[in-house]
Amino acid sequence: MKRLLPPWAARYRRAFLRDDLIAGLVVALMLIPQGLAYATLVGVPPHYGLYASLLPALLYALFASSSVLSIGPMAITSLLAASALAPLAIADPLQYTAAAALLALMCGLMLLAAALLRLGAIAQLISHPVIEGFVSGAALLILVSQLPPLLGLPASGESGLASLPPLVLGLPQANPIAAGLGLAALAILVISRLIAVPALVYLGLSPGAALTAQRLLPIILLGAGTLVVIGAEWQRALAVVGTLPEGLPALRVPAWNSAWVRDLWPAALVISLLGFVENIAIAQAYVQRTRERLDADAELRALGAANIGSALMGAFPVSGSFSRTVVNAEAGAQSPLSGVFAAGLVLLALLFLTDLFAALPMSLLAALIIAAVLQLIQLKGLRQAWLYDRGEAGAMLVTALSVVVFGVETGIAVGVGASLVSWIWRSSRPHIAVIGRVPGTEHFRNVSRFEVETKRGLLMLRIDDNLFFGNAERVYELIQQRLHAHPDTRDLVLAMSAISRIDVTALVMLLNLNDELKQRGVRLHLAEAKGRVLDQLAQSSLLEELTGQSYLSCERAFEALGDGAHSPQRPGQPVSH
Amino acid sequence: MKRLLPPWAARYRRAFLRDDLIAGLVVALMLIPQGLAYATLVGVPPHYGLYASLLPALLYALFASSSVLSIGPMAITSLLAASALAPLAIADPLQYTAAAALLALMCGLMLLAAALLRLGAIAQLISHPVIEGFVSGAALLILVSQLPPLLGLPASGESGLASLPPLVLGLPQANPIAAGLGLAALAILVISRLIAVPALVYLGLSPGAALTAQRLLPIILLGAGTLVVIGAEWQRALAVVGTLPEGLPALRVPAWNSAWVRDLWPAALVISLLGFVENIAIAQAYVQRTRERLDADAELRALGAANIGSALMGAFPVSGSFSRTVVNAEAGAQSPLSGVFAAGLVLLALLFLTDLFAALPMSLLAALIIAAVLQLIQLKGLRQAWLYDRGEAGAMLVTALSVVVFGVETGIAVGVGASLVSWIWRSSRPHIAVIGRVPGTEHFRNVSRFEVETKRGLLMLRIDDNLFFGNAERVYELIQQRLHAHPDTRDLVLAMSAISRIDVTALVMLLNLNDELKQRGVRLHLAEAKGRVLDQLAQSSLLEELTGQSYLSCERAFEALGDGAHSPQRPGQPVSH
Repeated sequence: MKRLLPPWAARYRRAFLRDDLIAGLVVALMLIPQGLAYATLVGVPPHYGLYASLLPALLYALFASSSVLSIGPMAITSLLAASALAPLAIADPLQYTAAAALLALMCGLMLLAAALLRLGAIAQLISHPVIEGFVSGAALLILVSQLPPLLGLPASGESGLASLPPLVLGLPQANPIAAGLGLAALAILVISRLIAVPALVYLGLSPGAALTAQRLLPIILLGAGTLVVIGAEWQRALAVVGTLPEGLPALRVPAWNSAWVRDLWPAALVISLLGFVENIAIAQAYVQRTRERLDADAELRALGAANIGSALMGAFPVSGSFSRTVVNAEAGAQSPLSGVFAAGLVLLALLFLTDLFAALPMSLLAALIIAAVLQLIQLKGLRQAWLYDRGEAGAMLVTALSVVVFGVETGIAVGVGASLVSWIWRSSRPHIAVIGRVPGTEHFRNVSRFEVETKRGLLMLRIDDNLFFGNAERVYELIQQRLHAHPDTRDLVLAMSAISRIDVTALVMLLNLNDELKQRGVRLHLAEAKGRVLDQLAQSSLLEELTGQSYLSCERAFEALGDGAHSPQRPGQPVSH
Repeated sequence: MKRLLPPWAARYRRAFLRDDLIAGLVVALMLIPQGLAYATLVGVPPHYGLYASLLPALLYALFASSSVLSIGPMAITSLLAASALAPLAIADPLQYTAAAALLALMCGLMLLAAALLRLGAIAQLISHPVIEGFVSGAALLILVSQLPPLLGLPASGESGLASLPPLVLGLPQANPIAAGLGLAALAILVISRLIAVPALVYLGLSPGAALTAQRLLPIILLGAGTLVVIGAEWQRALAVVGTLPEGLPALRVPAWNSAWVRDLWPAALVISLLGFVENIAIAQAYVQRTRERLDADAELRALGAANIGSALMGAFPVSGSFSRTVVNAEAGAQSPLSGVFAAGLVLLALLFLTDLFAALPMSLLAALIIAAVLQLIQLKGLRQAWLYDRGEAGAMLVTALSVVVFGVETGIAVGVGASLVSWIWRSSRPHIAVIGRVPGTEHFRNVSRFEVETKRGLLMLRIDDNLFFGNAERVYELIQQRLHAHPDTRDLVLAMSAISRIDVTALVMLLNLNDELKQRGVRLHLAEAKGRVLDQLAQSSLLEELTGQSYLSCERAFEALGDGAHSPQRPGQPVSH
């Protein structure tokens, strides 16, 4: 019985129920406008965004390892889906929606397959700056895509930067009512983010209540906008959501169209991977608060189930939403049950409130999306990365620009490739320090940073990196340079404290080095080699062929080797430590 | 004046001249049969192999940083050229030869461009096992390609494994004379390699002379085979080299055919890269003997010039040959002048001996190639890699199989990709050790391998890898696990002796860890952080926000933290060090 329950059920307490209900209500009030908006971003009718909020939330709750993650329609995933579906050039809206559902099914199957293969660790292959760069670039693309509906212009058929010139040329044809409502809502959303919370606190609200009020602004704006349209009888004067079908669609498996599958699979892979990476990043941010152990493979399973649920509803790919997760956690959610409650409220809206949505202006949904993605552009992250490591800041910028210029899939490929190659490249420029003993201790440090003692005839080198094919030759050259600068060396000690792995290429290099030093009458010693490294070296001939010894510590090597006189080293740079 | 001379000229002494002449003679006697054979492997008339031995050797000598490398026709490069030219489907032999020369020109230009950009370090991106796997796979492909000429069968038009079924079906049509000569020569070559040297030494030759005699066996066999054909008047009974044009071709730049360039550039890139990598590997093997400093950028320049020289002769891509380099070095070569002398002797053969080549059986050239490539199949290397690291042995096998099944270019791409991803993957599974003090020293070691002392409330963890996006999350989890196992921890010390680099992703992880530990009342300390790492961390907010201290050494952290009582740790596994 216990094995059939989701992992969070075991520690559920009755007191959680109230918290989860309140959080569910707050999240539902965000989920309804976001669902309607992101469905239009995908290109399917708005109510599919509400469908995508139902079954996925239920299925996610069954498998989830995170208590607070809010699953459902999400901006970046919707953009990815739209960019995957565009090349299929499907004119019929029903067919287009069917293709979106098939895409969700493919994502779900891929995620479940990855969970079976325990590929959860794959999320690690994308670096933080690359993800931030990707999200920033995608946010810009989404922003550009929402400008026509914001201004009441028809879509130009172009996407990305190419859609800007027709947009500018079309400005005179903008719909003044749509644009007025949209721009006003956008201004209120952006300004409120800057001043609303302090202002409400000044007016006497508690900070928590003020924050919640500000978070409910989108649904308030949608309601107000709809009432204005109804009051002024503007239903035909601007684009509105229009009549939505009441109730629920029948559950069914999307039709398997081989041609679509062939065209969509790379996009499905990217959507799955990025959705998963974002999920992990969001869940990770809350794992500390909740003391949960995040299980990447369980997250894969849960996200896969959620996407299959979305496909069965006939909707589009879903993933975790950062904005809703923040609200869910702050509203006090204790378990995925809050998501189930939110889905229940969305269901009620679908059953009883679809008439209200009919007069909802599309330009308001566009304003909502733009306000949301503006927060995703990570200028602060870029500045911090720049200060810490310009190479990584460069990777972030290149990823963002590639997304904007070449599209989301090429962009993420460029980013991942750049971070892999740049890491190998950095590893290929290792640092090698000549070290000596800090007087009065058994501690060995870089002679150019610390005032240390050395011995005649003894050269101690610390290699500051793992040894592998990418740096073996370079390390060989650097060792030769140091030996050249210390021509009286009779004993060379390699301090291996920083070495955790030595691959075959580097092993061959060490064997060659040992041979060559033997001919020159220099003995090669190892010191501080870790147990695991020595265990592996014992499988090769290096330890047998070594002309010197392997010492437990630099101290023991220092005592045993060189001539007796400790020559105090000239002081190096001032020690800042 | 001095700047115009090649780098080796400055240390040239008159006494070297005799050594270089002798080495040049021995190499020429290998170069003639190899040149004829490898030209047929490329698919151009045999005498182009001799052309490819002339100007390239001169130009290489002008720029070379290695004294003993023998440049010219080479088995793997010839195979790569043949596989690049095959898809062009050029029926006209003159056109085919022109395309081969264009390919050599493209390789030369790419290598010179790489030299200008100082990309010599790029050779490091291919690991030793991947190169060995590639060479073994390519050797098998070459072997298969030479079976039809060995047996006097026409080429089937298929290549690689696909050529085996037609070969087997065609066996009854084999030419008995060609097959007899070829198989006899192959048997002599293979058996002599096993027993010739001991036998000759037994007969009274010095080991050096015996080795040289064995190395001259190919030219002796070619001579003997030719005499047999002439004596028996078999010129029309089997495929022979036929009449070759006497003298030298006019130097000219290959015609620039844009369609060919577009099709050939990926292959040119692969040929350049692999030729260069092989050159470096060969030169590296002799750098020790000659005390030269190998300059990768100079090698790029020299190899680029050699290929342009080959293109000007109308021939095909060239690179360093391992077999001839061994012979050249053992025959006593002191400088690239030995290569120039060898080229001079080949020139004499071209001027005066072409009539002799006319009766040379093609099946003998095939036997020569097969005997040569048999030595390239690295079963011993595979066994050693298997013992040391099964993952790398796997990469070697996968590369070899990919070459055989999918062809040389896909094969090398698979190998390079596999070695990059597997290195990142290994780095993503870091080892974290709980450490304690080895009693009576200031040395800290893994508690499960050494009998060490620890303190209550103090947990010291050594992270055995650089911190980066590929392992940041995993390290975070491992630290949490260790903390969970030591619930009384009040001070956590991260021993950073093995950490040389911390990227932005890992920095964010450390900031999160610090925040989270603060909430739990655990202080986070660093110890043994290297100067360069601290310099970079100072650009972030980590050192300011750190709840604990950064200690110079584990010893200082151990003295300052935890409660006074040193609790002797239970002994771990027996210490084998």
